[in-house]
Amino acid sequence: MRRHLRIDLAYDGTDFSGWQVQAKGRTVQGTLEAALFRLQGDRPVRVNGAGRTDAGAHARAQVADAFLETDLGLPELNYALLRMLPADLRAIRLREVPESFHARRDAVSKTYRYRLDRSNHGDPFLSRYALHHPYALDVVAMQEALLRLPGERDWSAFAGAKCKVKSRVRDLREASFQAEPKEDAYFSFTANGFLTHMVRNLVGTLLEVARGRTSPEQINRIVASRDRAQAGPTAPAHGLLLWEIRYPGE
Amino acid sequence: MRRHLRIDLAYDGTDFSGWQVQAKGRTVQGTLEAALFRLQGDRPVRVNGAGRTDAGAHARAQVADAFLETDLGLPELNYALLRMLPADLRAIRLREVPESFHARRDAVSKTYRYRLDRSNHGDPFLSRYALHHPYALDVVAMQEALLRLPGERDWSAFAGAKCKVKSRVRDLREASFQAEPKEDAYFSFTANGFLTHMVRNLVGTLLEVARGRTSPEQINRIVASRDRAQAGPTAPAHGLLLWEIRYPGE
Repeated sequence: MRRHLRIDLAYDGTDFSGWQVQAKGRTVQGTLEAALFRLQGDRPVRVNGAGRTDAGAHARAQVADAFLETDLGLPELNYALLRMLPADLRAIRLREVPESFHARRDAVSKTYRYRLDRSNHGDPFLSRYALHHPYALDVVAMQEALLRLPGERDWSAFAGAKCKVKSRVRDLREASFQAEPKEDAYFSFTANGFLTHMVRNLVGTLLEVARGRTSPEQINRIVASRDRAQAGPTAPAHGLLLWEIRYPGE
Repeated sequence: MRRHLRIDLAYDGTDFSGWQVQAKGRTVQGTLEAALFRLQGDRPVRVNGAGRTDAGAHARAQVADAFLETDLGLPELNYALLRMLPADLRAIRLREVPESFHARRDAVSKTYRYRLDRSNHGDPFLSRYALHHPYALDVVAMQEALLRLPGERDWSAFAGAKCKVKSRVRDLREASFQAEPKEDAYFSFTANGFLTHMVRNLVGTLLEVARGRTSPEQINRIVASRDRAQAGPTAPAHGLLLWEIRYPGE
């Protein structure tokens, strides 16, 4: 029986070379496809993911879809899949979806978080999941820059060199910074889609603002320039977490 | 200048072969001693730790003390030590203590937590720090067993085979189980000291109670037997976290 499945995934990206299957390296997509291959009796399967996360970046809620040839019911599939996947890649929910469902194209919005460890000493339990950044931050300036970001704009200035899409216009709907209790803080960005490295380049630039190297007013000029050289450095991947993907009606 | 330092440590124990220096393997004590060796100009130093955590077990707040020959001030020492230690072992506080201070003997109490991941699918961000335990738990029976535990008693029934101390009497002051929001839950144990594997054997036994294999009433008989064979299995080390060590006046 042919089934179309939506698979919600969580992964610790530390030991993955990113989402997308490559010639070399352990990838999330490759690991998932290998499990599904075995699950449907050694027949190849292609998995379609909503977001191509970078090497070292994490996901709390990635979404993928795949067509499977199997007579197993959903609970059995779920159980079998969990048994076959490693501890750092978990299928958190499995459901049957219409033929037409497409994890990437149907996504209405995506939210990424970028975590900072603000402790002086560096929390060993956050070292895989947050950028250690104990330096003084001008949070007021950074908040001002964040307020200037949202909108449907051309984000070329924040696109990585590997970005190959034609249109670089994306609707950034939310950009915020939360300092949580203790020394844990994070950025949050929601958009209808993101360019390669866009969140990491936004974070790198915002940290320049927070350290007084760029003024909040310059943000608009940087966006308008569409010139990657005007924006700040790319923040490391390990602070990045794909937080949520929304679909129509969710 | 000879200084006596108290060093509060946090570590992710995943990639350590426990606290204590051994012939083989990367240990917390060995890594700290290597850093201090370099810090005082390549002179050997012995570090004295309050608790000998198992391979794979973690610490939020381990305490150690060491005598150091150095002319550096505390802030410089702190900075240098953080630079020399790896990301999974951090010195969270450094202070000068009287000659007589002894991290292990002076400790008034220690608190360990043991974390469970209660999610069905297994949270990839907890896989290093919590025992994945999605099975039904009779929490009422377990709470009853926990209430029966505290007291100054001989804990031989819960001591690992490697335990070599003469007196196995310890004053267990608190034993509890907290189910946190979402699917994160933990045991907490406070005592004036613990025997080798004592917390892990207590957890293994309590999970037997929670799964209906041992009745809460049997707990007293198991303790009284002083027979390791009467207690439950040893829970895996990776769920264990040295949470707090208290000293007089703290």
